[in-house]
Amino acid sequence: MSTDALNRLKSIDRELQLLSKTVSLLHWDQETYMPPDGIDMRSDEIALLTGMIHERGTSDEFGALLADVGADDEHPAGGSEVPEEDRALIRCLYRDYRREQKLPAELVRRFAVVTSTGQAVWARAREANDFSTFRDHLAEIIDLNRERAARFGYDEHPYDALLDEYEPDMKASEVRTVFDQLQKDLVPISGRIQAAEQVDDSFLHQAYPVDGQRVFSRRVLEAIGWPFSRGRLDESAHPFTTDIGSMDVRLTTRYAPDFLNPALFGTIHEAGHGLYELGVASKYHGTSLASGTSLGIHESQSRTWENMIGRSREFWLFFYPELVRTFPGLLDSVDLDRFYRGINRVESSFIRVEADEVTYSLHIMLRFRLELALIEGSLDVDDLPEAWRAMSRELLGIAPESDSEGVLQDIHWSMGAMGYFPTYALGNLYGAQFYHVMMEAIPDVRDQIANGNFADVLEWQRENIHTHGRAKTARELVMDISGQTLDARYFTEYLNKKYGEVYQL
Amino acid sequence: MSTDALNRLKSIDRELQLLSKTVSLLHWDQETYMPPDGIDMRSDEIALLTGMIHERGTSDEFGALLADVGADDEHPAGGSEVPEEDRALIRCLYRDYRREQKLPAELVRRFAVVTSTGQAVWARAREANDFSTFRDHLAEIIDLNRERAARFGYDEHPYDALLDEYEPDMKASEVRTVFDQLQKDLVPISGRIQAAEQVDDSFLHQAYPVDGQRVFSRRVLEAIGWPFSRGRLDESAHPFTTDIGSMDVRLTTRYAPDFLNPALFGTIHEAGHGLYELGVASKYHGTSLASGTSLGIHESQSRTWENMIGRSREFWLFFYPELVRTFPGLLDSVDLDRFYRGINRVESSFIRVEADEVTYSLHIMLRFRLELALIEGSLDVDDLPEAWRAMSRELLGIAPESDSEGVLQDIHWSMGAMGYFPTYALGNLYGAQFYHVMMEAIPDVRDQIANGNFADVLEWQRENIHTHGRAKTARELVMDISGQTLDARYFTEYLNKKYGEVYQL
Repeated sequence: MSTDALNRLKSIDRELQLLSKTVSLLHWDQETYMPPDGIDMRSDEIALLTGMIHERGTSDEFGALLADVGADDEHPAGGSEVPEEDRALIRCLYRDYRREQKLPAELVRRFAVVTSTGQAVWARAREANDFSTFRDHLAEIIDLNRERAARFGYDEHPYDALLDEYEPDMKASEVRTVFDQLQKDLVPISGRIQAAEQVDDSFLHQAYPVDGQRVFSRRVLEAIGWPFSRGRLDESAHPFTTDIGSMDVRLTTRYAPDFLNPALFGTIHEAGHGLYELGVASKYHGTSLASGTSLGIHESQSRTWENMIGRSREFWLFFYPELVRTFPGLLDSVDLDRFYRGINRVESSFIRVEADEVTYSLHIMLRFRLELALIEGSLDVDDLPEAWRAMSRELLGIAPESDSEGVLQDIHWSMGAMGYFPTYALGNLYGAQFYHVMMEAIPDVRDQIANGNFADVLEWQRENIHTHGRAKTARELVMDISGQTLDARYFTEYLNKKYGEVYQL
Repeated sequence: MSTDALNRLKSIDRELQLLSKTVSLLHWDQETYMPPDGIDMRSDEIALLTGMIHERGTSDEFGALLADVGADDEHPAGGSEVPEEDRALIRCLYRDYRREQKLPAELVRRFAVVTSTGQAVWARAREANDFSTFRDHLAEIIDLNRERAARFGYDEHPYDALLDEYEPDMKASEVRTVFDQLQKDLVPISGRIQAAEQVDDSFLHQAYPVDGQRVFSRRVLEAIGWPFSRGRLDESAHPFTTDIGSMDVRLTTRYAPDFLNPALFGTIHEAGHGLYELGVASKYHGTSLASGTSLGIHESQSRTWENMIGRSREFWLFFYPELVRTFPGLLDSVDLDRFYRGINRVESSFIRVEADEVTYSLHIMLRFRLELALIEGSLDVDDLPEAWRAMSRELLGIAPESDSEGVLQDIHWSMGAMGYFPTYALGNLYGAQFYHVMMEAIPDVRDQIANGNFADVLEWQRENIHTHGRAKTARELVMDISGQTLDARYFTEYLNKKYGEVYQL
């Protein structure tokens, strides 16, 4: 191996990162401040830069340099001569290169075309509640994903090759095992809650002035340690987090004028994503390692902040008086206990994005099982709407009457994203398993939160999770932190305890 | 000539435009919303993309394609086979290619290094009022600019080669001629005004709530025809206009809490720049022609809107009642006449950016003459501070005691920009000459403005100036619109008339 090759790889990686963060800014601007008529130029800018990134990242030079440092399928982190501190980077570069390079340009192009028109077709189909107009597009997207899976290659199941894009090295069989366990525990919890007396959350649905919501959202961000010198909070139709480099991480939220939850919990959720990106060790900044290691781990951080912290009684012991003051007249007659129970109301619904902590994972299982069947060919796309309803009945106890509220409700499939959904539920499981360990490491964490002190929590997350970026895989993080593999039990224990109290079961 | 070569040139031009507009967005974001710690990554992103643009724009392929369509110094718009509608594009591409390609990479690099550190050195020197610490840097910048001028080549004067970057095809000798005429007329006007009774503008220096300023600025933009679907107004420390493509043009302004003018006239000024970019014919969008043709013409549009329209009595006949209503209690006792005279107060000062319409051009002449002497070598950099004072006395009748208010006041030289200053004053002259023609074309223009109707004004500017982008040179615009070459007389006639009234001379 030549040191030159290693340095050249790092230098190309740096350039690819600069280009890719530029694309992130183009996207961020498009969703936040771009005037509407700028869209055509913007699409072409993004397409040009994305093409350049793909071209450089799959170039013969890049491949030759990786070969030069001894990276191959047997040695994904390079030959034994690659210094220890560079092995994680080589592993990531080789992984990304291999995935990109396995797909022929024509397949990449077709997939881009079908999925970009797919989104528009899906939006119209959902609007019209007419699955038949989306059916052919979806069938083609499934076919293309099966072809992509075949190109990527897999050992057990074609779904593994797709899942790997979002949750590297995770297998469908593992997801199936933890989800089966989760279902066994969740369905009875959900049933007991539904049998109990429902809690009131009507006070969350009032006219909350948007200016007050803005002020309070920033106040919460400041209190939990969001550094505005390295980050932003803006508004967009669909909240998201993006990193324009590790020193510039941007959240968006949206303010509903008649409902407190979207901004309140949306902002905390995105902050969880953002704090992860901000916490990557500075030695990885500007490299391929400076990013969350998987979508599941990413979602564990956002959901821990949104739900385990942000929907905890301790959190509101500290923040509730300020919230009441921020909205004079709206919450004066609502005491902390009622507020706490209201923000943790559980209710089976058809719509995933409105689901509570308890039923959310059931929505994910439904999608996971259906897309698994679609990819392996055991479910025909024509039978999908009915399969959705049947699965919904089994998991949630209810089934939507319309396809708009059923098989057409999510944008993901129309974008070509199959294998993405499981990461949402995995996030809950990772999060609970990590939180369990953290509670042992910081015995007085509840008191700290009740005093508005989040420093130890953040420090624990940084040291154990954030700092590693992509240098540790999700599997390694789980094992290093908890000493065991992923286990759904921590999450259901957490739910049992919390909701037993909320619903006085 | 092959049609392929022409199409390939257009396709490369399209990509260069996409990259360059992306750089514009990176800059815009840096000045408006980027969190401070994002700066290092941002600088590297800009450097990378700028380097890629330079590399592609001076590549052997690009040069060969230009040769293929017959473009050379004798035929800058290409061979006779180039279709008429493509000749302007080839002329621009050839011009840009030739300028870029004449500079050796090492000179480009040295110039970038010296001018980027130069700005920091200048800022400290100005802060400390110590020219000696900036002297060596400035000397090197002058040397490098002389070397650049020699590389670019020129017929008459090395300054021409530098001026050409900002005001293509303009010669120092022409600037000298119009400036001499201008001085002859301006100095007496300025003298008569100074002998007259000074007008009161104390009411402009009050505590104007920034929220009100924001609302009023947007209100003015809407009224004059600023299309927010294709543009924005944001805030930055130094106001500027940037086009992220012809369908996405962004202005910034700044709100001084105790002075109405910066936001009021700054916003209108930038809108003049922005309307020019927005008015380029759609057939040029996304090409090198989709841009203002020179900085002088650009400045003519901003100054026409800011001064000839925005500081006219008619303009305020329409807007003043609304301004008074926007700031209850602040302007109630100030009648329109007093307001009008106040916003047109003339006063010799040391500071260019605070100068009024009458004395502004004198500040420019001062700089033009000094940089001309520096570039031709007839003025030594050691003698510059004293030469500044002497020239200031001659033109403005006053001289600054400190170098911070004298030779160190502008950032331009530290950035390497020599040949830029004249375009500010040329803008006044172009603007007045165009406005004279427009007043004949729209006889009731004053009534229209007094009724808040700007459609005809904008339409005239679009048809005669904006639509052409870079397809017509400044020289061609002046000739086509006014039937003669640039003449300072229109500007001094305008000043004589207006200020005779304001100062009741």
